[in-house]
Amino acid sequence: MLVTDLIRKKRDGLALERNEIEFLVNGYTRDAIPDYQISAWLMAVFLRGMNRAELAALTESMLNSGQVLDFSELPAARVDKHSTGGVGDKTSLVIAPIVAAGGLYVPMISGRGLGHTGGTLDKLESIPGFNVNLPVTDFRRVLTQCGAGLVGQTAEIAPADKQLYALRDVTGTVESPYLICASIMSKKLAEGIDALVLDVKTGSGAFMKSEKDAVFLAELMVETGQRLGKRVAALITDMDQPLGQAVGNALEVAECIDVLNGKGPDDLRELSLVLSAWMFLLGNRVRTLDEGRMLAEEMISSGKGREKFREIIRLQGGNPDVVDDPGLLPQASNKTALKSTGSGFVTGFMCEQIGIAGILLGGGRAKKEDSVDPAVGIVIHKKVGDRVAAGEALCTVHYNSAERMEQASAAILQSYRIEANPAAQTRPLVHRIIGDRN
Amino acid sequence: MLVTDLIRKKRDGLALERNEIEFLVNGYTRDAIPDYQISAWLMAVFLRGMNRAELAALTESMLNSGQVLDFSELPAARVDKHSTGGVGDKTSLVIAPIVAAGGLYVPMISGRGLGHTGGTLDKLESIPGFNVNLPVTDFRRVLTQCGAGLVGQTAEIAPADKQLYALRDVTGTVESPYLICASIMSKKLAEGIDALVLDVKTGSGAFMKSEKDAVFLAELMVETGQRLGKRVAALITDMDQPLGQAVGNALEVAECIDVLNGKGPDDLRELSLVLSAWMFLLGNRVRTLDEGRMLAEEMISSGKGREKFREIIRLQGGNPDVVDDPGLLPQASNKTALKSTGSGFVTGFMCEQIGIAGILLGGGRAKKEDSVDPAVGIVIHKKVGDRVAAGEALCTVHYNSAERMEQASAAILQSYRIEANPAAQTRPLVHRIIGDRN
Repeated sequence: MLVTDLIRKKRDGLALERNEIEFLVNGYTRDAIPDYQISAWLMAVFLRGMNRAELAALTESMLNSGQVLDFSELPAARVDKHSTGGVGDKTSLVIAPIVAAGGLYVPMISGRGLGHTGGTLDKLESIPGFNVNLPVTDFRRVLTQCGAGLVGQTAEIAPADKQLYALRDVTGTVESPYLICASIMSKKLAEGIDALVLDVKTGSGAFMKSEKDAVFLAELMVETGQRLGKRVAALITDMDQPLGQAVGNALEVAECIDVLNGKGPDDLRELSLVLSAWMFLLGNRVRTLDEGRMLAEEMISSGKGREKFREIIRLQGGNPDVVDDPGLLPQASNKTALKSTGSGFVTGFMCEQIGIAGILLGGGRAKKEDSVDPAVGIVIHKKVGDRVAAGEALCTVHYNSAERMEQASAAILQSYRIEANPAAQTRPLVHRIIGDRN
Repeated sequence: MLVTDLIRKKRDGLALERNEIEFLVNGYTRDAIPDYQISAWLMAVFLRGMNRAELAALTESMLNSGQVLDFSELPAARVDKHSTGGVGDKTSLVIAPIVAAGGLYVPMISGRGLGHTGGTLDKLESIPGFNVNLPVTDFRRVLTQCGAGLVGQTAEIAPADKQLYALRDVTGTVESPYLICASIMSKKLAEGIDALVLDVKTGSGAFMKSEKDAVFLAELMVETGQRLGKRVAALITDMDQPLGQAVGNALEVAECIDVLNGKGPDDLRELSLVLSAWMFLLGNRVRTLDEGRMLAEEMISSGKGREKFREIIRLQGGNPDVVDDPGLLPQASNKTALKSTGSGFVTGFMCEQIGIAGILLGGGRAKKEDSVDPAVGIVIHKKVGDRVAAGEALCTVHYNSAERMEQASAAILQSYRIEANPAAQTRPLVHRIIGDRN
């Protein structure tokens, strides 16, 4: 098999066979095929696309390039949720305890903040002592013991993806839905799960700004997962404004604890319940989505989700008392309210700007090497549809540097759109559902 | 300037600016930009194309990556002809003497056989002692002295093209008309010429099988040359059957001597005259194409072209007596006639197969390292439109190995299409002319 023939085949818009894709991926990870051939192929994939069989073959080859976890000895289904990332997007910390408390296993391998979005690992690390870097044996022990484990990716999981991602990053081939799909799904399916619920964000705070792009990616991921034998559904959810009120690591953990206590913002609570219900359904824990939702609600009202979160934190080395007293989480030295200059209604956000404001405060990374300040962030008081009077607080900024606060505040105030009349239409939280229990 | 931004720009179908293209080409030749980024960009160019300004900028950057010869001190215009390659395509050896004898300068840098096509350098080297590897100072001396020089490319000419071609060869990005154009034109314009006539072959023995592709490439090359300040025209000429009768290095040289002696096959003579006429016209030696043709014919009838060829050979170290006695050229040990099994008319060739037969005989290279047998080849007796009786000779194979002869003969016989009636239409020698003296 000649690499150039395979590149030319894709270049000319033809589909590669499964063994041809394996040849490329395996050759690349074994350093038998050079970067310059793979980058030409990646660009051809970017511009020509892939059919569904090719995409499944690519995902499977990347998945099989490393360790694939096997939790099949556990007595109930393994399910996970993956979000494409957003601002204030913190549902993992609510869902993992709820679904584990409800009787399924959640082996969740998460990431760090990327671009303007936050990352589950960064949020978890704001809990004093919480260790996301568990070796596989410890991950397995925690998962077996309490039903959930929340860790970072190891070098053994889908190494082909790491290598390909690094090459895509320097060859202008990141933003391909096909390559994004293979990257996400190869890592997620390495978790040894039976079912996966995808939360595909769309809107001004998402990577997929347009719903069309979000739906296209979601369909690719659902079909790819299904072709690889998993039960997968995707929810296209709104990211035109931050989810919940808190943006910032410790602030978001505190907000998740609120939800587990039966309080917290409606949108965060609602999305957490919907996603949990889907996980219960795809994990065959319940027969209908309604049953799933009831079970999820019960995990909150009974306090079992809350207790499960304590347990997860304890088993991963963190201080579980934060669940009872969120004041034990890191606190910023200063707070200031940003006030509205005009009056009217909030009609929209440039939501990505809110994420960038969080990074400007120090809550995320501008460069890979940057450390993250867990305490800083934004608590949003006025969201889309809310009435605002001049001088009323739009949000509160938690900060440790006046200079950073100034920069972030400018970004936040720019982000708000306030008009005389409320927006004619409001966007639903869940736009569409793709896939089913199949 | 970020390389990834430039790759993404081309990927998204936008045109790069001149300074951006220069940045890529210069960065690559200086090893400041790695192969894997350039190969992604090449694939994006392959699939997205380039506009004419981009293509001119690419050609100019490649041209300026090395030495650009300057013959402006010579008292008449420098003109050249370039062919995209074919089977039996030997006009350079007729044209260079004619045009030099007619008063212009022909600084011709040629190539070796590529794929199924022959190469001018291989043909010239069948002349005993002929040296195509002249240093620039010797090339200049020969050109100044006799009006023509026929040499191979040096490492100093358009090194960016060498580097890019090697990368294209292993990344499936060879067959792009844009990249082919930049490759050809950067090398040709490094010859320090004022005008260029392009012989763009189309048909079953050409690289561009379809006329549409040939015209597209020709238009790109003509406009690119004109943008870089040269007078350029392109002739789309027929390569659906071999040009002339001889295919094979020494056999082709002998046939060219025939033409310079006022004999030889009509099609070779005609195309040589037409191309020479265009060179005289673009070189401002004459005012009309008709005048150019008359001048070219005169160079044959007067014997001046023939004497010029003797002079070129002598100045480049070869034995000029081959012009008087082609028997001094290498001769194959054996000849055999290939006879027609049926009777009728020759209606066509799979012309590429004739070129491959020449390589099978040893007259070309299957691998880069192969040496070439100058003596072997094919002399074709029956061409399109000719009547053939069963048992009549179609061609004569000149060979030095019976085994190779067997393989080549099979390819030749397969290539011939003989039918009861002659083809309804015959293809003209010159299909179209593109560009003008502008």
